[in-house]
Amino acid sequence: MLKGNLIYGQSGGPSSVINASAYGVITEAQKNHDSIEHIYVMQHGIEGILNNHYFDIDDYIHQIDLLPITPASAFGSVRYKLKSHTDDITDYIKILDFFKNKNIRYFIYNGGNDSMDTCVKIANYMRSVNYDIQVIGVPKTVDNDLPYTDHTPGFGSAAKFIVNTMMQISLDSKVYPKGKVTIVEIMGRHAGWLTASSHVSSLQGMGPDLVYIPEIAFNETKFLEDVNRIYQKNHNCLIAVSEGVKDETGDFLGLRNKTTDAFGHNQLGGVGVYLGEIVKQNLGIGYRAIELSSTQRAAAFIRSKSDVLEAIEVGRQAVQYAVAGETEKMVTINRVSNNPYKVEYGLHEVRDIANLEQVIPNEMLDIENNNVNKKFYDYIIPLIEGEYEQIYDRGVQKFFNITKKR
Amino acid sequence: MLKGNLIYGQSGGPSSVINASAYGVITEAQKNHDSIEHIYVMQHGIEGILNNHYFDIDDYIHQIDLLPITPASAFGSVRYKLKSHTDDITDYIKILDFFKNKNIRYFIYNGGNDSMDTCVKIANYMRSVNYDIQVIGVPKTVDNDLPYTDHTPGFGSAAKFIVNTMMQISLDSKVYPKGKVTIVEIMGRHAGWLTASSHVSSLQGMGPDLVYIPEIAFNETKFLEDVNRIYQKNHNCLIAVSEGVKDETGDFLGLRNKTTDAFGHNQLGGVGVYLGEIVKQNLGIGYRAIELSSTQRAAAFIRSKSDVLEAIEVGRQAVQYAVAGETEKMVTINRVSNNPYKVEYGLHEVRDIANLEQVIPNEMLDIENNNVNKKFYDYIIPLIEGEYEQIYDRGVQKFFNITKKR
Repeated sequence: MLKGNLIYGQSGGPSSVINASAYGVITEAQKNHDSIEHIYVMQHGIEGILNNHYFDIDDYIHQIDLLPITPASAFGSVRYKLKSHTDDITDYIKILDFFKNKNIRYFIYNGGNDSMDTCVKIANYMRSVNYDIQVIGVPKTVDNDLPYTDHTPGFGSAAKFIVNTMMQISLDSKVYPKGKVTIVEIMGRHAGWLTASSHVSSLQGMGPDLVYIPEIAFNETKFLEDVNRIYQKNHNCLIAVSEGVKDETGDFLGLRNKTTDAFGHNQLGGVGVYLGEIVKQNLGIGYRAIELSSTQRAAAFIRSKSDVLEAIEVGRQAVQYAVAGETEKMVTINRVSNNPYKVEYGLHEVRDIANLEQVIPNEMLDIENNNVNKKFYDYIIPLIEGEYEQIYDRGVQKFFNITKKR
Repeated sequence: MLKGNLIYGQSGGPSSVINASAYGVITEAQKNHDSIEHIYVMQHGIEGILNNHYFDIDDYIHQIDLLPITPASAFGSVRYKLKSHTDDITDYIKILDFFKNKNIRYFIYNGGNDSMDTCVKIANYMRSVNYDIQVIGVPKTVDNDLPYTDHTPGFGSAAKFIVNTMMQISLDSKVYPKGKVTIVEIMGRHAGWLTASSHVSSLQGMGPDLVYIPEIAFNETKFLEDVNRIYQKNHNCLIAVSEGVKDETGDFLGLRNKTTDAFGHNQLGGVGVYLGEIVKQNLGIGYRAIELSSTQRAAAFIRSKSDVLEAIEVGRQAVQYAVAGETEKMVTINRVSNNPYKVEYGLHEVRDIANLEQVIPNEMLDIENNNVNKKFYDYIIPLIEGEYEQIYDRGVQKFFNITKKR
């Protein structure tokens, strides 16, 4: 193992705990003086390396304890897909130059499937030119769709936000004698984990009456029957729907919602509005569509303690594994037991993870009743447990601020 | 003063602290055995009395400590405007019958302007028939638009949610090298208090670049100039807009957003989408519109401690004043000092409050720069201070549940 410097980067959609992983990486790297001399952070992930935009962590050490309580990607993120170096070598020449200039021997990349794809490609190229570097992926996604890990940091906190927000929306939407059909659209383009977490609210008697996820094909006739039955009984109906819900042919429902705006343009609306419109059209019941949007992945003020602690730990583990000589692998979380909840950390080849999506397995679903079963609850409850304390100054959360250098 | 029973009701839009006021009313009424024998609560406010639907608080005493931590209107709310008894006496005969049957001598009604109008009308009628009853209003509105009170319970917590959520959205919206114009639509049909609170986020360097409130006329030319200038500089622009923002002629901008849906119907969209469309049309910049919707008034997981405590206290004060013989008045909060923050409680005639709306006074605004000034910050900061602790059970908030009788 060569002694050298470490660079860390954030990639893909932000989460409320990705900076907790940054904290884990940075503080663990600081402890490994024998292997790691200096710590850099990419500005906007891999694009920072291509443009020579990076941060020297020494400039931010005074704020480092704010990282675990700060949502979104504090160092900037990116959605940039590297071509294979055999197709186009341009980017790789820049990356190699940067690595050599800065003596980078540890490349720690924090993100989801696409970020692991970046890890694969960089590792492949560096191997081909005999540049010695340890490439380790740190998992992150609110969608919980990474394979070979029990779950992914970011999911537990987003799920906790969904569970508690759906309870609050449920209470709010039922205050009047005669309500509406309220449809809440939740993130998850291919996997319904976040949307399905709202079943936990229903366990409390304060959740959605109906939940639609991509894993179970949407049937419009059944949908209208169910909404009508519930509304006629309760004068109210609360629905949770995943943005990625699909019909029997596998087409996204959201793509059907072409509306024409004031300027005559076609607008691609959300699936919530689409479902509301078919309710209004077919049942004559008014609706309200709520899109939780970015608040669900950035809500630092309600996070799961186990999620935050695990996010820190996967960062630490990444550094430990890299220093131990591991490369081209992603840190994984392996559940040992549910009660008490216990996990161990491990590794899996990044190339297996790059292009695979983990949806909710059938064994956790009650497909016939459009529901989840006990296995799902046993899986999810430990992930939302515990509250991680935020720091407030006169009512305002204190956050890490990249514009404030030492 | 006649010894008798008390009935309490909730009316108008819910807030995250109206049940804290219910808690104040109920627990204070319990202490006043000499005047108050029994405590009832209307189901869906005044409509509960008209339909003989009510709760006996004895059935819920085991859950009473959950009220201060439960958002929305736990006993149901209503939007029902009583006619004057001189126009139509039907409702009043039912109300008088109910009062006589249940020996109601204390009528405590919790809500905003319209709820105070209900207090006025009931008090007028009861006086005309010589039915002896104390009618006291308890203030509630997230919009903070009630006059003769420094502020209204519900506002501080909603404002705290807005301040912290806008910071989170700001961080989230700026993670990529090239962003969009993000427009967040915030409640407040006539008063911009909630939307203006997002200026507090900007004080932290993590808030909206531009804020639009009903108190300052919207100028489209200036808006497009400002958005373009900021976007060209930062590749990003975050906007907070009140749902009630108006143009120079006083018309709501939101009413302009007539879109045609998939079924050929005209849809009335929000002002956020409208602003986004004029940005796209005129500047060719992509946008994302976020409507915070009911989450902003129901977010129990981030509330202001001073707001919760004051909400409890206005409930207590209402009972104390009623028992002391006061009637046809609403409890008010009078600010004594900002530093340290100190308030006193008082009363004001409900008839003055019923039809008046308190907007942000000019002295707190910097109209020329479409901004607020120090007076606004001095006013708002104490209202969002402190965190009120929620109770979680395995990651899920514990809430009062009206379906669970003792």
